[in-house]
Amino acid sequence: MNPEVLLSRIRVVLCRPSHPGNIGAVARAMKTMGMSQLYLVEPKQFPDPEADTRATGAVDILERAVVTATLGEALVGSVYAVALSARQRDLGPAIGQPRDAVADLLAEAEQGEVALVFGNETVGLSNEEILHCQAAVTIPTNPEFSSLNLGSAAQVLCYECRMAAFAGKPPVRSQGATPFASPAATHDEVEGLIGHLEAVMTATGFFNPLQPGRLLPKLRRLFGRVRLEKDEVNILRGILASTQVRTEHGRKG
Amino acid sequence: MNPEVLLSRIRVVLCRPSHPGNIGAVARAMKTMGMSQLYLVEPKQFPDPEADTRATGAVDILERAVVTATLGEALVGSVYAVALSARQRDLGPAIGQPRDAVADLLAEAEQGEVALVFGNETVGLSNEEILHCQAAVTIPTNPEFSSLNLGSAAQVLCYECRMAAFAGKPPVRSQGATPFASPAATHDEVEGLIGHLEAVMTATGFFNPLQPGRLLPKLRRLFGRVRLEKDEVNILRGILASTQVRTEHGRKG
Repeated sequence: MNPEVLLSRIRVVLCRPSHPGNIGAVARAMKTMGMSQLYLVEPKQFPDPEADTRATGAVDILERAVVTATLGEALVGSVYAVALSARQRDLGPAIGQPRDAVADLLAEAEQGEVALVFGNETVGLSNEEILHCQAAVTIPTNPEFSSLNLGSAAQVLCYECRMAAFAGKPPVRSQGATPFASPAATHDEVEGLIGHLEAVMTATGFFNPLQPGRLLPKLRRLFGRVRLEKDEVNILRGILASTQVRTEHGRKG
Repeated sequence: MNPEVLLSRIRVVLCRPSHPGNIGAVARAMKTMGMSQLYLVEPKQFPDPEADTRATGAVDILERAVVTATLGEALVGSVYAVALSARQRDLGPAIGQPRDAVADLLAEAEQGEVALVFGNETVGLSNEEILHCQAAVTIPTNPEFSSLNLGSAAQVLCYECRMAAFAGKPPVRSQGATPFASPAATHDEVEGLIGHLEAVMTATGFFNPLQPGRLLPKLRRLFGRVRLEKDEVNILRGILASTQVRTEHGRKG
């Protein structure tokens, strides 16, 4: 696929950014590398003159930025997301190197919209947010001084995206298309499945919402790893629906 | 050679920087990637509080920075220098890609001190300065918006230096837990799950063994791809069993 088209499919999602200046710096970093889709989840202050100043010639990206209340909303319609995370999270995806992670991201962009997800400057992403992402990445830094700011981290990753998009040979993952393949499920379709499963598990008594334990994060991790296709989501929801009908029918009898 | 030693041999040389804030941003970018030797050729204003502010925890690099009157002085004792240049100069070295140029730089660092040379924010390096360098590099950018600032350009090149010094795999900090994982499920455990699922689907009427279609092969493909763990097989069979209990119970009622 055309490298510029691939780059245009990458959303940069900033979760709860505190400093408008950093939003501007990220917009500038994106635009220098040919990326344009900025999503802001609960920005502390936006729009803001400081963001415009730091963006310099990339104010158009700020003007088109999409502000959402949750990471889930920012990922609607996307098929793959990579989280920037300084540390490994329990149940979270294993943390990889930027170059490898970006190669995977670009490969997924052949199928649809993808996302690079950044956390708040101080506290990063929440564990729950990380579980919305299929992969995680850390930028390798000096162990004695790892203080990359948000703009610099975005610059490095956007640069890697551009390098990967133009690598001449599109990255080929070992899992290619197979005779059965259907298009990748979108984030919201997978969320629909998880919600459906939760309802069934609650109805059967397998899951107690008052004592949730780690069941839901474990299931979310499983679905995150498998990279479901649309067809598979439909099958799994069909199975779930069939158990519901049976249960209701049985109850009446 | 030890990667940290290689990184310690790279000088970052800023020629006639106009804005002290940029000097601070470069110091920070260097330190995050394990580099420490900053040379300033005729800085307009240095030292300066704005430089300290932008450097945050990298003020030590500013304190040890060497200020010189010419690029030649900043290169004394070095064996190789790469110039950042936005355009090809008459008689200047051919302009290459950052990754290739940095690989050469690190190879030369095995022999001695080397340098990455940046020009003034507005006018860049002079033709005469470029001729002090053995190689030249441009960071690839969006042709319609190539406005990388000095700090961002330094961040990208310092990151490439760290990647190259560690042969593409710099260690990432192993903070926190290892990813949650239970042992892989065995073939027979997965078969047990598929059999269980088939029984439930048959009981609910979702699956008709007389008209099987492609449902089972599709499910088998899904389970084959996800590489289930024991814990996950137990969860999924628990869910299936819970729907069975409910159905039976309902039937009796």
